[in-house]
Amino acid sequence: MKALENIAQLATCRSEGGQGEIHAVADGVVVWEGRDVVWVGARRDMPAAYTAAERIDAGGGLVTPGLVDCHTHLAFGGWRADEFEQRIRGRSYLDIAGGGGGIMGTVRLTRAATEDALVERARGFLGEMLALGVTTVECKSGYGLDRENELKLLRVYRRLAEQGPTRIVATFLGAHTVPPEYRNDREAYLRLLLDDLIPEVASAGLAECCDVFVEDSAFSLEEARRILLAGRAAGLAPKLHADQLTAGGGAELAAEMGALSADHLEHASASGINAMARAGTVAVSLPLASLYLAQPAMPARRFIEAGVSVAVATDFNPGSAPSFHLPLALTLACTLQRMTPAEALKGATAIAARAVGREDRVGSLEPGKAADFAVFDAPDVNHWLYHHRANACRMTVVDGEIRWRAPADAYAVPR
Amino acid sequence: MKALENIAQLATCRSEGGQGEIHAVADGVVVWEGRDVVWVGARRDMPAAYTAAERIDAGGGLVTPGLVDCHTHLAFGGWRADEFEQRIRGRSYLDIAGGGGGIMGTVRLTRAATEDALVERARGFLGEMLALGVTTVECKSGYGLDRENELKLLRVYRRLAEQGPTRIVATFLGAHTVPPEYRNDREAYLRLLLDDLIPEVASAGLAECCDVFVEDSAFSLEEARRILLAGRAAGLAPKLHADQLTAGGGAELAAEMGALSADHLEHASASGINAMARAGTVAVSLPLASLYLAQPAMPARRFIEAGVSVAVATDFNPGSAPSFHLPLALTLACTLQRMTPAEALKGATAIAARAVGREDRVGSLEPGKAADFAVFDAPDVNHWLYHHRANACRMTVVDGEIRWRAPADAYAVPR
Repeated sequence: MKALENIAQLATCRSEGGQGEIHAVADGVVVWEGRDVVWVGARRDMPAAYTAAERIDAGGGLVTPGLVDCHTHLAFGGWRADEFEQRIRGRSYLDIAGGGGGIMGTVRLTRAATEDALVERARGFLGEMLALGVTTVECKSGYGLDRENELKLLRVYRRLAEQGPTRIVATFLGAHTVPPEYRNDREAYLRLLLDDLIPEVASAGLAECCDVFVEDSAFSLEEARRILLAGRAAGLAPKLHADQLTAGGGAELAAEMGALSADHLEHASASGINAMARAGTVAVSLPLASLYLAQPAMPARRFIEAGVSVAVATDFNPGSAPSFHLPLALTLACTLQRMTPAEALKGATAIAARAVGREDRVGSLEPGKAADFAVFDAPDVNHWLYHHRANACRMTVVDGEIRWRAPADAYAVPR
Repeated sequence: MKALENIAQLATCRSEGGQGEIHAVADGVVVWEGRDVVWVGARRDMPAAYTAAERIDAGGGLVTPGLVDCHTHLAFGGWRADEFEQRIRGRSYLDIAGGGGGIMGTVRLTRAATEDALVERARGFLGEMLALGVTTVECKSGYGLDRENELKLLRVYRRLAEQGPTRIVATFLGAHTVPPEYRNDREAYLRLLLDDLIPEVASAGLAECCDVFVEDSAFSLEEARRILLAGRAAGLAPKLHADQLTAGGGAELAAEMGALSADHLEHASASGINAMARAGTVAVSLPLASLYLAQPAMPARRFIEAGVSVAVATDFNPGSAPSFHLPLALTLACTLQRMTPAEALKGATAIAARAVGREDRVGSLEPGKAADFAVFDAPDVNHWLYHHRANACRMTVVDGEIRWRAPADAYAVPR
């Protein structure tokens, strides 16, 4: 049995209550046995039974549940750094795509990459994310866009899940865009998804969720409905990329489908927001993508005021959000979306766990859940997200084991 | 003699040419002897005389001159994290200030802090900045606002400069705001600055620059002119906080004064921009402050197109920009201000060095200048500022000595 002590603020992030209720405890203690939390609370309330636990020092910091990044495109080949410069210079996305760049550039490089190479690379990303306090990561396919390469990406995620320590939630996003081979026969690509890939992915246990990009340039609402229904019938929980560039009815469809989440939502309609509230669908905000695309962020306050729970994630991908810095995304949620630090934190813990269907195990610190947590060098959540540093995380624990610790001299100036 | 090799891109950042000309060399080598660079260029051009130099491996990364953060308020007491939350909740700055917060809250805590405590704290910040590749930091007073405490802050900076390794450029900003003690007698505070503090600061060598906050709530143009003229007469180079909230003629005054820089400039007028171009005054952009204040960033492209050199800095301070992450500021300059990565880098090296009057020694890698540089885990500047990571810096060198190195296992996942 172990006990984490010397905690300035313990944000347990239990799911009850509103977006900003993180159920923080001053001078808290977390006690765990093996993989599971057995007790959390204020030190003065700790039962005598736990006083014999091995003590671990949180250094007077902030302790949160392990962060959940509930929307990433983690495995891909290549990068697109030069497109970043080209877009700044005013080159249009269509022009870039016409020159072989854009998403199809990534698809080409992802298809060319071996499964082993993709595993090694994504493993490096997960290591850096773990060092930021991120212990659960949703990972989408969608850069394969054919049978062989979509399955390859999902096998990459399975291997990463087996290797640990980061928890992986794999999402099948074969419906990311229609690949050029099928541009003149969309229906044939839909049939590949509906008849072959979704059943195969589901029966092999390669994914837990099924996602569709609903947008003029990708899939229509009606196509998305067919795909999500097929996924749901096969046991894959629905998710949607919705209303990113225009109000296209994606939020409404997410609610209709009982989706775990609708993501992006920069242009969601009032009726879509209300439908999501009634259905209990989580809205996933991706402020790094808004920043990189220089577009207005999703109007988080409208969602929160309508009673929708808002998660915050990175959208990590090589095009529109080439950063996996979830704490930076949370600070951006504060500055660009007027979410309070507590609201942002709940959006990357309890609410993000709901957005990936893992709220039974992660997203909050309470008895019976996993002993996944992060220790930050900050007195409280306000300070952590206000004073943006390279990395304020000092320790990350998954399933009760310390899996990352800041080197003692990480920032030391030689004397 | 030492030679840094295995460099994917060596951005020498010589000052010649436009904002985006960083004079990059592929497969470059930097050779130095003691504190000074003796040769830079492509490996194939390296004179035989340098082949005997001790080799240092850049790991196939990007090498830039040591970054110059040309606008910070480095030393202060306390933080204002709770105001961050209050502003998100809609509380006005005036209301916060009325409740004892805002800048005067920081002044109160800075006055209460001992010189030793301020040195230790700022030293910690400088250590983290060094780990980000920042080797020169401009540091403003301005949270003392009386004789004793303004001199205390400048002594803090002198001690930090003496301790090294970070180079410090101290700026006297007694004219940050009129302290409450003088609210009914502004002229008396001006007299304190003009007759006592400026001469004392200059004769004691406690600062190199004199700065004024020109804004309705701080100092008028006419007051600023008097202060900057007095500073200039005493040997302090003029700088200005100008046109942050309204177009107040600050850019024009900076040009008239031959200021090293005018900073902020979110609302500078066309005539002000043109005057700065004619005078060769550097415009310092502070995109972190724009982000934290949720305000439009300075229109960098208008300045660049008018022929003004644009520096990018953090504005690190506990109110409007509580982050010293200069690489993040550079990425924000790309995303919020449409500066290319190369333009942003030049703005934090050669141009920033000009903004603090140190271009003779730092800001570029060329023979005769200081061997100050940073090694980043990125193939080029586009990739570095596009793929935002907690910290891509792997090594920082000041005056020829390795002063920071990323721990080998900084991001390793325990196996």
